[in-house]
Amino acid sequence: MTQTKLDFVQICPRKTKSPCLYPRAVRFGVEHGTAALTGLLVAFVAAILGGEVARRLRMPAVVGQIAAGVAIGPSALGWLTLSEPLELLAELGAILLLFAVGLETQLADLRKVGKTAFLVGLLGAVVPFVLGVAWALSSGFPASKAMFVAAAFVATSAGITAKVLQELGVLNRIEARIILGAAVIDDVLAMLLLAVVSALQTKAGVDIVNLLKILAVAVGFVAVVAFLGTYVMKRSSAILDAPLDEKSPLPVSFAICLALAVASAYVGLAAIIGAFLAGMVLAETPHREELEHDFARISAILVPFFFVVTGATVNVGLLASGPVILAVVVVTVLAILGKLMGCGLGARSLGNRAALTVGVGMVPRGEVGVIVAGLGRQAGIFPEATYAIIVGMSLLTSVVAPPALKVLLSKPEEPTAELPAANG
Amino acid sequence: MTQTKLDFVQICPRKTKSPCLYPRAVRFGVEHGTAALTGLLVAFVAAILGGEVARRLRMPAVVGQIAAGVAIGPSALGWLTLSEPLELLAELGAILLLFAVGLETQLADLRKVGKTAFLVGLLGAVVPFVLGVAWALSSGFPASKAMFVAAAFVATSAGITAKVLQELGVLNRIEARIILGAAVIDDVLAMLLLAVVSALQTKAGVDIVNLLKILAVAVGFVAVVAFLGTYVMKRSSAILDAPLDEKSPLPVSFAICLALAVASAYVGLAAIIGAFLAGMVLAETPHREELEHDFARISAILVPFFFVVTGATVNVGLLASGPVILAVVVVTVLAILGKLMGCGLGARSLGNRAALTVGVGMVPRGEVGVIVAGLGRQAGIFPEATYAIIVGMSLLTSVVAPPALKVLLSKPEEPTAELPAANG
Repeated sequence: MTQTKLDFVQICPRKTKSPCLYPRAVRFGVEHGTAALTGLLVAFVAAILGGEVARRLRMPAVVGQIAAGVAIGPSALGWLTLSEPLELLAELGAILLLFAVGLETQLADLRKVGKTAFLVGLLGAVVPFVLGVAWALSSGFPASKAMFVAAAFVATSAGITAKVLQELGVLNRIEARIILGAAVIDDVLAMLLLAVVSALQTKAGVDIVNLLKILAVAVGFVAVVAFLGTYVMKRSSAILDAPLDEKSPLPVSFAICLALAVASAYVGLAAIIGAFLAGMVLAETPHREELEHDFARISAILVPFFFVVTGATVNVGLLASGPVILAVVVVTVLAILGKLMGCGLGARSLGNRAALTVGVGMVPRGEVGVIVAGLGRQAGIFPEATYAIIVGMSLLTSVVAPPALKVLLSKPEEPTAELPAANG
Repeated sequence: MTQTKLDFVQICPRKTKSPCLYPRAVRFGVEHGTAALTGLLVAFVAAILGGEVARRLRMPAVVGQIAAGVAIGPSALGWLTLSEPLELLAELGAILLLFAVGLETQLADLRKVGKTAFLVGLLGAVVPFVLGVAWALSSGFPASKAMFVAAAFVATSAGITAKVLQELGVLNRIEARIILGAAVIDDVLAMLLLAVVSALQTKAGVDIVNLLKILAVAVGFVAVVAFLGTYVMKRSSAILDAPLDEKSPLPVSFAICLALAVASAYVGLAAIIGAFLAGMVLAETPHREELEHDFARISAILVPFFFVVTGATVNVGLLASGPVILAVVVVTVLAILGKLMGCGLGARSLGNRAALTVGVGMVPRGEVGVIVAGLGRQAGIFPEATYAIIVGMSLLTSVVAPPALKVLLSKPEEPTAELPAANG
């Protein structure tokens, strides 16, 4: 431990002729890596400022936070260096965000919208995938690679929409519930799809038995946690009161959240899906409101890191060429249309405006799109330019959807179903 | 970013003949390092369990958390690997702990005890240093190295005592205020001392001008933040209300805390000193109670990482030899006596029991002792065995002091001044 921590010469505050104002050993006060701490400070202040600017422009705070992340990220101003600690904090932020959202969601509410959510998740995966394949084929990719490219069109970043829904205080509306339910379905499908398209890149081809195993494990995990967990919590919430800790049940709840997030990651789903389920399970206990209140405070400190880091992962340099910009616009339009059509179709029983709201809510691809694109680039499936295009699309969909969602959800008195593009 | 994150083969949940249930690419849900997340889970669950066991044994929770850290650490069970992200989280925990303590402290309260706190800090540094030099000389170290060894006897780990004081709800008692004030003095002196003894190891020798510079910067920082910051906050706390964020002033307060922690580290002091000052400054605003309440929630999640990681840094293997164990006991007794005598002398105007309480409160060396010892080992100033002895002393003082402090502070109706060794 000490070895890595005690080499602080590089962060000596003054670069004067004399090597350093302080002998190296003196800087033991700087023990746990001031550089990492400085990174946190920069990221957090950027998030505050970005969020504040967005709010004053009447946009959701997340848009400003992502934009701030892009601005200070390594590819733009370079004030923020992405590091493992910062990324873990961002992950923790996403986990706490979805946990908090889960606390505001009850299984009974989700079950009511189960069918619709399933349709939204399914069609919201199929239509973008088809559009993605079409674009990739027309761009000259062979079929198997085209399907990998299209896989990056599919997965929604639940965190971004969830935060907007939370900010607007509309998590109890039917559209919000459908979006959250569909996000779980979407994640299961996206994982399967990525398994299929990855297998297609190898000589071995698709192993149906293995895919069914993956599906069974993922669905089984969600079902067991959601149904059994809820059942157990309803009956035995007393275990939350058992600890002597006067902050109880806060620490135990956080442990449950972390445990299900880790378990979720181990079965191949996103960690945030497990965190969401953990929140939903704890929402069945009498501690629900207390936990909601407490975790809102904790989220206020940690969630901003998620959005800033999401923005900072974007390499703006790759986007600075005419053809790439054009392609980004085309791909973004396709990615948006895919979700609007697919999810809208799935939710059409709710009426036009609600269906549109659900579709818009599923539009952001966020860090998930960036990650899939990174996989493809790393495996040599597509070139840098394609990577840049998908990353650009992920960012644009993440920035365009929240303001549109805000408009659609904050004026329920005007039941029109116009496209909100003019406001985005 | 993606490069480092996507190599998940090693954390595949099943080690069967087939390489992995999931193709590598499928595991994109595991994006941000499930290994790191698993580490957080292990550390946090250990902290909960350790704290709970300690509480049931009527000991302060921190003792159990440190012990749990030792148990699961790399040198014992090996369930926890220390990593940069975990250490940053631990640092953040320590920062939030001292920030929360600062929020419960007002400058006016500290000023009242200023003289006593200064004496406690000064004598509490001098006496352990003298005892340390005596031990090191008698162990055969030459004078300059003996002084380095003794430097590890000096610095108190404010976090451990602060947590105990907070748990007992006695932060407003005069002993608590003196301990907190003295911890600031102690940190300034320890930094200076380390500068001196480090310089003594080189041919250049001690540069008085440079030392005065270091002292001026450190004292200037504390004074400017404490007095100017408090003055500004008293008058212009409206800036905390300016943001539109409905969680305001929480995020801005956290930013101020981080900023002063980073600034503190840059002037050579411990980051937690800056966090403590930030809390004290914000305690002057009308938001004090709200912030106290909110940061207590945030601390409940992050502070346990500090104690578990502190425990996990101890290499128990080094301590498993007869002569080393004997030396640890001797050194621990000297380290305890040094603080009891020095600090008790400084606080003798308060009466025996209060003076003893202050002395006990300054006993824990915690992670600070470990860090100084690590510096000495790294620089080749002393061998592994000496390192192990100092680390053992740091751990023992941290585990012995909290229960003694609890006994001394929880029975104010018996104004006896007996040594609490029997209860420790």
